Amino acid sequence: MPTVAILGATGYTAVEVIKLLLGHPDVKITALTTRQEGSPRIGAVHPSLYGRLDLPVENLTPAQAAERAEFAFCALPHGASMAAVPDLLAGGCKVVDLSADYRLSDPAVYEEWYGLVHTDPTRLGTTVYGLPELWAERIAGKELVASPGCYTSTSILGLAPLLAGGFIEPTGIIIDAKSGVSGAGRTPKLTTLYPECNESISAYNVGRHRHTPEIEQVLSEACGHKVEVLFTPHLVPMDRGILCTMYGTLTREASEDDLLAAIREYYRGKPFIRVVEHLPATKDVAHTNFCDITVRKVRDRLIVLACTDNLIKGAAGVAVQNFNLMAGFPETRGLLP
Amino acid sequence: MPTVAILGATGYTAVEVIKLLLGHPDVKITALTTRQEGSPRIGAVHPSLYGRLDLPVENLTPAQAAERAEFAFCALPHGASMAAVPDLLAGGCKVVDLSADYRLSDPAVYEEWYGLVHTDPTRLGTTVYGLPELWAERIAGKELVASPGCYTSTSILGLAPLLAGGFIEPTGIIIDAKSGVSGAGRTPKLTTLYPECNESISAYNVGRHRHTPEIEQVLSEACGHKVEVLFTPHLVPMDRGILCTMYGTLTREASEDDLLAAIREYYRGKPFIRVVEHLPATKDVAHTNFCDITVRKVRDRLIVLACTDNLIKGAAGVAVQNFNLMAGFPETRGLLP
Amino acid sequence: MPTVAILGATGYTAVEVIKLLLGHPDVKITALTTRQEGSPRIGAVHPSLYGRLDLPVENLTPAQAAERAEFAFCALPHGASMAAVPDLLAGGCKVVDLSADYRLSDPAVYEEWYGLVHTDPTRLGTTVYGLPELWAERIAGKELVASPGCYTSTSILGLAPLLAGGFIEPTGIIIDAKSGVSGAGRTPKLTTLYPECNESISAYNVGRHRHTPEIEQVLSEACGHKVEVLFTPHLVPMDRGILCTMYGTLTREASEDDLLAAIREYYRGKPFIRVVEHLPATKDVAHTNFCDITVRKVRDRLIVLACTDNLIKGAAGVAVQNFNLMAGFPETRGLLP
Amino acid sequence: MPTVAILGATGYTAVEVIKLLLGHPDVKITALTTRQEGSPRIGAVHPSLYGRLDLPVENLTPAQAAERAEFAFCALPHGASMAAVPDLLAGGCKVVDLSADYRLSDPAVYEEWYGLVHTDPTRLGTTVYGLPELWAERIAGKELVASPGCYTSTSILGLAPLLAGGFIEPTGIIIDAKSGVSGAGRTPKLTTLYPECNESISAYNVGRHRHTPEIEQVLSEACGHKVEVLFTPHLVPMDRGILCTMYGTLTREASEDDLLAAIREYYRGKPFIRVVEHLPATKDVAHTNFCDITVRKVRDRLIVLACTDNLIKGAAGVAVQNFNLMAGFPETRGLLP
Repeated sequence: MPTVAILGATGYTAVEVIKLLLGHPDVKITALTTRQEGSPRIGAVHPSLYGRLDLPVENLTPAQAAERAEFAFCALPHGASMAAVPDLLAGGCKVVDLSADYRLSDPAVYEEWYGLVHTDPTRLGTTVYGLPELWAERIAGKELVASPGCYTSTSILGLAPLLAGGFIEPTGIIIDAKSGVSGAGRTPKLTTLYPECNESISAYNVGRHRHTPEIEQVLSEACGHKVEVLFTPHLVPMDRGILCTMYGTLTREASEDDLLAAIREYYRGKPFIRVVEHLPATKDVAHTNFCDITVRKVRDRLIVLACTDNLIKGAAGVAVQNFNLMAGFPETRGLLP
Repeated sequence: MPTVAILGATGYTAVEVIKLLLGHPDVKITALTTRQEGSPRIGAVHPSLYGRLDLPVENLTPAQAAERAEFAFCALPHGASMAAVPDLLAGGCKVVDLSADYRLSDPAVYEEWYGLVHTDPTRLGTTVYGLPELWAERIAGKELVASPGCYTSTSILGLAPLLAGGFIEPTGIIIDAKSGVSGAGRTPKLTTLYPECNESISAYNVGRHRHTPEIEQVLSEACGHKVEVLFTPHLVPMDRGILCTMYGTLTREASEDDLLAAIREYYRGKPFIRVVEHLPATKDVAHTNFCDITVRKVRDRLIVLACTDNLIKGAAGVAVQNFNLMAGFPETRGLLP
Repeated sequence: MPTVAILGATGYTAVEVIKLLLGHPDVKITALTTRQEGSPRIGAVHPSLYGRLDLPVENLTPAQAAERAEFAFCALPHGASMAAVPDLLAGGCKVVDLSADYRLSDPAVYEEWYGLVHTDPTRLGTTVYGLPELWAERIAGKELVASPGCYTSTSILGLAPLLAGGFIEPTGIIIDAKSGVSGAGRTPKLTTLYPECNESISAYNVGRHRHTPEIEQVLSEACGHKVEVLFTPHLVPMDRGILCTMYGTLTREASEDDLLAAIREYYRGKPFIRVVEHLPATKDVAHTNFCDITVRKVRDRLIVLACTDNLIKGAAGVAVQNFNLMAGFPETRGLLP
Repeated sequence: MPTVAILGATGYTAVEVIKLLLGHPDVKITALTTRQEGSPRIGAVHPSLYGRLDLPVENLTPAQAAERAEFAFCALPHGASMAAVPDLLAGGCKVVDLSADYRLSDPAVYEEWYGLVHTDPTRLGTTVYGLPELWAERIAGKELVASPGCYTSTSILGLAPLLAGGFIEPTGIIIDAKSGVSGAGRTPKLTTLYPECNESISAYNVGRHRHTPEIEQVLSEACGHKVEVLFTPHLVPMDRGILCTMYGTLTREASEDDLLAAIREYYRGKPFIRVVEHLPATKDVAHTNFCDITVRKVRDRLIVLACTDNLIKGAAGVAVQNFNLMAGFPETRGLLP
């Protein structure tokens, strides 16, 4: 049974990874790390885990973590992850990296959007992007996988089939995305203080959110030509959930049924994609690894709607899905009964 | 001091009209109507009004209401309003109609979108559309004004200046709108039951919401040529507030500063429009008659963001604003100190 | 593998039963019933189940349901349940009843609090009350178990150890209970419409909530003498969760540590009770079958705090726990990894 | 027209004071202070004030503030207020202090509960406690008034009439209080981060909340003998509102009507108290200076329910009410039409 370490165990993503792995029959959690001091029990850090996992959260180096576990889930902020991953790999530990550090293929693009010089640039461009619905066979057996972001997954899963099928113009695509507040992380700040964001909706980072180049890079590769999107994220007063409302221009005549059929065909045999006829709500996928997708046609415009739980399919769930593929388990192990 | 009746006093819009009028120094509420029986006190229907207004909610005919008041605020559902307004006017009562019944200029368009034959068609096309920021002078002194809808006002206020200024292509405009739940009214139904819509966001009526023709009609008139929009409403888990994120294509080179300056110039002297540099949040305008607007430019695209309180600027507040203009009061009376 | 029917499949409790049973390795769902017509797929009634269970929701008689399944979960309203249970049992189907119909031991008390003459009175007083933490051995192998209510379970689990240990005066106990809105069911009504209960807290049914006699009956039996409580429920703007803040008078000197130790001892070996030192929050137990309990002492007063997820430990989870005991499975099957 | 300074202008209470004063016809805001640097416009600190007040928020000393204004609203944290108030008074500025620093009459009690030596102890015991419903005549014309806390006001307003009337035993009173999150202030911290407190309810500071001695002191004075309460605050997922559910023992036979009549008589002529028959909800008083109160009797127990808006009647509203009395204006000026 593989042993697993979780780096950055105090955050929202980590607690979801832990819960999923506690329900995974073939894995044993052996280390939890933080950069804070004090080694509290995990049940004191996340009271929902009280009595469910008897481990401290320790300030371990990546090398120490690698001694304790065969696999590591890196739930660290960007920048911190690229400082840890080389040591984990050097220690013989396979890594699912949940940060943005290994997702982009070009260090210059990383530097432009994240404002940091990449310290492990040779792994960019060679690290597999962990979106199993597109590239499960690439992920299988790998030592390092870059697990995708929440906005990114939801956008790509919605758009890839119709772009790959040539139904949508690859430029001029608008992604109007709405996210629950947990996506902003567990570090206290004014913008995510309850009385600030409750009972309110607003856009942020208009035209300059860091998931934009990631979406364009993956969609371009998925459909074989350059894709350009305008991405607008919004903060919605709810804990979890992402809805992407995506607007594109039809390239040729097609009915809604044609479009739904194309999406269904693209995802045939993919257990976590539900192509639905109704308009999906984030609540329908909350606490699951599902992505619900539908499409509407209005005149010559397509509206693709896709939603996920940002903490599960958008983070912890897809990470476990990637782990399963890396470790040789069925993709759904620990994620579906 | 003008006497005022409120028709349809049990709904969310009516309670806001009442609260605004209680703070209006020059008006006296003399009748409240409902189609339900029993004549409860208004404080029993809306506990927030307990002790603030000592009137029953009565099942009065429009003619009876007209005997009691010089002005009527019609907060009735569409269909019910066009059945009441002719009798109110015949009784000598001036009317601010908050329903959709008198907003469209073409009875055929009304029938197409509302599924009802209009029973007072001769007033369509001649009734003033009550958006004071565009047409205050038309509203002054009128006997009947069609007060606009919440999605409509927010969309139009955001887009009109840049369309009128020729900055945006008039077709291909996308309005991605997000509304709080009070916009769906006070009649219990599954979709707005707390556990259904809490902690969830979803789109509804994609491509076929009834505010679409109203937005197109008013914008077309405001800018002098045909405007076509794709309108997608979403339900957001909050009580009140509308945010419209609107996407258009620039027709010519212009900086964000140029665009903000054009919007400011268009609304010079309009007390309820705040053209802001930051990204507006619905919370900033909650419980006020303000509409906050800004614009961003990304490549050749414009993103206009506008928000209002759907119950105030989107319903009760603009209705009082119209009343002020009809009755000869300053536009801000009862709405701003 | 036992076959299972769920009666009343359109409600909030039923959907949780279904999700738990989908994760239960030893059970097969074979029938879903409703009193509505049309036989929609369950995925159309509850979109979160789309693609997860391919069954219609049918208007079956209890006898028809009994032909399809060896066990039935009755998630019907009170009154409806006692009309169905006799036929289910007559058809050879074992029943976990989630309604209040078989919880009280005295038909007169039932009639007084529910306003209905009990139509199956001989089963009152003989049906086992399904609170496994108190009476697991009674439940094992039974044909009918009355699964407890949400307020009831939480209150009893918090108070029983200290009452049984003689630490608290058995009268004068105050239970100030706070519940999420899903506890009020899925039938649209004004009080649970989103804009009515969002951003608000209020008490309801003060001094006359129907769970009062159930709490008193079970606590009296659990501690061997008559217990009297004052129960005040409140509606809290959240989907799920119950917190009971319970006030009693100490009968003798005891420290907080003594009290915590007494509670821990009482629940030794009970997998779903977590006796914690911190003040528990409903979020910590959301979507789980846990009940978190702690106690504080202020002068000669005890404050017991207990919380559960009203839909899981307060309804669907405890029902599955009872099913496990009835069917001979480990208590935790399908509820804990 | 009195000039007014607001100290601590970046917090939630201050923004409410500012909004109320903008609607007050007889006051002019002339200074806003903060201990932060940079002098931003108030509309940048609180976007809801954009365009409504053209003043910077400046790092002024109390003496500088006193030069700018005849009155000061001190919305500073405890500790900071007692450092500022002496200089304000020395500068000739009258002060409404919204902190806890001048509410208690005994410096030793202050030190015990707040962990600070009081640096202005001679004013304790002589400063008027600003609860106008009890002591309006004491407040009139004063130079310094200690405006009460939110939990405190709500508890006292509910209990004072029945304690003063001798209906309730003065000891053994339980106050189970529920508050919206804005009561915890605008400084980012983990406990009030949106994903922590949303969809959850929990108690905090059980048996040791700092409002306890304030409640006991004021109630004891109001009814003429020592009152002892057990106070348990809870955090509720909503922006604003406090509900206190208060349990006491009847001292003599009295009906609910008797009790309601006693409360009504106690508050005769008090414009902000609404004694209601229904169970009050915090939403009914949101954004108002009202306190809604009712009472229920169950056996020999009384349950008093009282609710306020913690930011208005519990902070900014009562402060303006106190200001009105100090300045010689009608109590309701700026608070009711």
